[in-house]
Order: sequence, then structure tokens, then C-alpha cells
Amino acid sequence: MTNTTRPALSPTPRSTLTRAKERGIADRAVLDAVLDAGLVCHLGVLLGGSPVVLPTVYGRDGDTLYLHGSTGAGNLRAAVGTEISVAVTHVDGLVYARSAMHFSMNFRSAVIRGEAVLVTDDAERDHALAVIVEHSAPGSWDRVRPPNRKEMAATMVVALDLTEASVKVRTGGPNDDADDIATGGVWAGVLPLRQVWGEPIPAGDLEPGIEVPAEVAARVCAVPVG
Amino acid sequence: MTNTTRPALSPTPRSTLTRAKERGIADRAVLDAVLDAGLVCHLGVLLGGSPVVLPTVYGRDGDTLYLHGSTGAGNLRAAVGTEISVAVTHVDGLVYARSAMHFSMNFRSAVIRGEAVLVTDDAERDHALAVIVEHSAPGSWDRVRPPNRKEMAATMVVALDLTEASVKVRTGGPNDDADDIATGGVWAGVLPLRQVWGEPIPAGDLEPGIEVPAEVAARVCAVPVG
Repeated sequence: MTNTTRPALSPTPRSTLTRAKERGIADRAVLDAVLDAGLVCHLGVLLGGSPVVLPTVYGRDGDTLYLHGSTGAGNLRAAVGTEISVAVTHVDGLVYARSAMHFSMNFRSAVIRGEAVLVTDDAERDHALAVIVEHSAPGSWDRVRPPNRKEMAATMVVALDLTEASVKVRTGGPNDDADDIATGGVWAGVLPLRQVWGEPIPAGDLEPGIEVPAEVAARVCAVPVG
Repeated sequence: MTNTTRPALSPTPRSTLTRAKERGIADRAVLDAVLDAGLVCHLGVLLGGSPVVLPTVYGRDGDTLYLHGSTGAGNLRAAVGTEISVAVTHVDGLVYARSAMHFSMNFRSAVIRGEAVLVTDDAERDHALAVIVEHSAPGSWDRVRPPNRKEMAATMVVALDLTEASVKVRTGGPNDDADDIATGGVWAGVLPLRQVWGEPIPAGDLEPGIEVPAEVAARVCAVPVG
């Protein structure tokens, strides 16, 4: 956990952090925690010679990140066998400083690079889809109808190894210049930000008498998302 | 606003939506609203021949998105003069379905592609930094110390035109198969998600007697973020 003067969410190059090294946290557990707390990732793929960034759902199993998409979706298909990047970011607060250039954000972020590997084994494909559903909706996979043959045929699963990943965390208050602190008179601090679940809204076509599953109801009262 | 059977957050190719066309919303006001409601974007740049996705702050002025970074940060510098992509995504809820493949998310997302243009004019650079600070912390630019010459020299500003942008919005409940609805017995619906500000935390080095600015205090009681 650091508290530095670098711009918020500054970039990380290939595998070495040249900026904000102090925000790089080697602990693999932190990487896993950042990934596991996210709902969507941002996937970067090369399309027509230039990068495009797309939000998508994902799941993690050990050292593998799984993505899925329709076989008709050109972007994920185009990514197979190429180097891709995936980022997951949580914004935890806005840092108000005494000077404009010290405004910042508290955040946790993970950036992964690696080859998008098409998963072809049926058992692994099935497992990956369970991992993806359980990632965002824990407890749901065994409660609902599993994918049928037609759905599986229309679905592409891609695996990304987590070996080349960097994680950054910023916490704490502003890092104002000593002169600005000495001058005083300007409020500085942090405005925390969090995600919260609302009350479940039953589907319009849900028949009467079906209760909200315990694992869904529990999320509403639980700790904030992320 | 749509309610479809496509996978959540499916990708969009270059300028035409080949998937989930029904989620493409031509209205420019929706694009602006999605961008204006975000705190960080995900920037895709080409580094060493492959894409990397990085979270970063931004601001919008009319048809221009501004990014900034340290002149020492290799990634933004490498992006200048090349095609980049920027995505902003809001997750508004998790859609629980009666079958695994119909799980989805309600979301608003914008994806932009275009050339990263280095801003060199001093007045525009200054304006862009004001736009970026005001984007996440409205009302702050005129309240705090502006950038000095040294800070400006260490800062790079990049402009991205919003001409090539796509926006997608999903709202509503699950789109289950008729067979699954007829079978029944499985809860389906939406678990809404929102971001909320917490109470402001004064900086540890803030002198006594400085009140929280009205525009900061007002955010806590205001409508949810996004």
C-alpha cells in the first residue's frame, strides 16, 4: 500500500514498471484479489493493425484467465493465437489535492499480457464457462440449466496465462508539495468510492412463488463489491 | 435501451457493430453521457507489436477526449501519432437467467478508436488539464493551485477525436429460452449495481478549520456515481 506523488493510474510497460515502481506489488495474492473482485475486464486486441479495447466478462482459475464469446463475434476470433492484454481496475476513491497536478485516484488495477489460446477440449470448455458464470454470479452454475450442445457450438472460449501480469495499488491521501501545505487554506483529502448491490428485481416473466436464491439475497447485505 | 439474447458486453468491430447491433445507439448524447459519467477509461496502445490496456484518467470537451501523463511514461509517449482505443464502461447490474448461457450484465459502454494527437499549444494544454481535473472533481480547478511551469514541462497531453465511437447499452431482465421459462422453478432477475461516494476523509496533514468544499460535500448526498 503506497502513497506517492505519481499521476493516478499511470501506465505500465511490458513487464517492468518504469513509472510508479513503488505501486507495483509483487504479491501474487494481490493480483488474484484484484481479478477476483472484478465484474468486467477490458480486453485489448489488435484489429486491422491497431488496438481496440472491449469490455467483457471473465473468470479466473488458478493461473488462467478465461474469456468467452460468440463464435460469430469477430473480435475474440481475431484474437486467437495473438498477443492480447486484459486489464481489471477498481476505483476506490478520488484524491483531492491542494494543487491541480496532485489530484489522483485510489485504485487497484491488474494488467495482463499474453497469447490468447483457443480452448478446444470439451471438458475444459465446460469448466471455463462454469468458472466465468461463477465469477460474477457465485452459486449459480449448479442452480441453472447448463449449456446445451447448440449453445456450446456457438461459444468460443479463450485462455490467457497470468504469468505476465502487473498489479498496482494506490491508497491514502494526497501528496501535496511542501510549499502548498505550508501555504494552506485549501481542503485536501479523499472521497471514497464503492460499489453496492441493490435489491434483486425479479424477471417480469418469473412465475409466482420462486424465492430469491440465498446466495443472491446475501450479496445485497454483504460487504461492498470489489 | 434493449433487452436481447446476446452475450453481455460483446465486442464491437471497427465502426460497424456486427454483433448486438440492437445495442448500438446512434444518439451522440448517449455517448457523451457514458463518457461524462466515467472516472477512468481503459486505453489500448500498441507496444512492441502487441496491444496493452492501461487504466487512466481522462476528460471530454465537445468532440475531443483528453488524456495526460508524465513525459517519463513510455506508454503514452509511444501512443503519440498512432491509432489508439479508449473504452469507458459502467456495469449497472448482474442479470441472473434460468440457464447459464443467458447470464448477462446490464451496462453502458463506449469504445473509441482514433489517432493519439500530441497537444503542443500551451493554451490548449492548460485547457485540457483543466478539463481532466474538472471531469473527475468538478469545481476543483479554480479552487486549487494551477500547474506551474515545471509541472507543465513534465506533463504530456494527448487528444483523441470522438468521431469513431460506438456506444452500447443493455438494460432489463434476462432473455431466457421459452422452454426454460415453461419449465420454471428457477429464479431469474436482475441484481442492480451502483457506485456511491463515501464521507470525505480529510488529509492527515490538513490544518484545522478548513471545511470540506461544498462541491465535494454535495457529491456524498447526490445521486449515485455513473
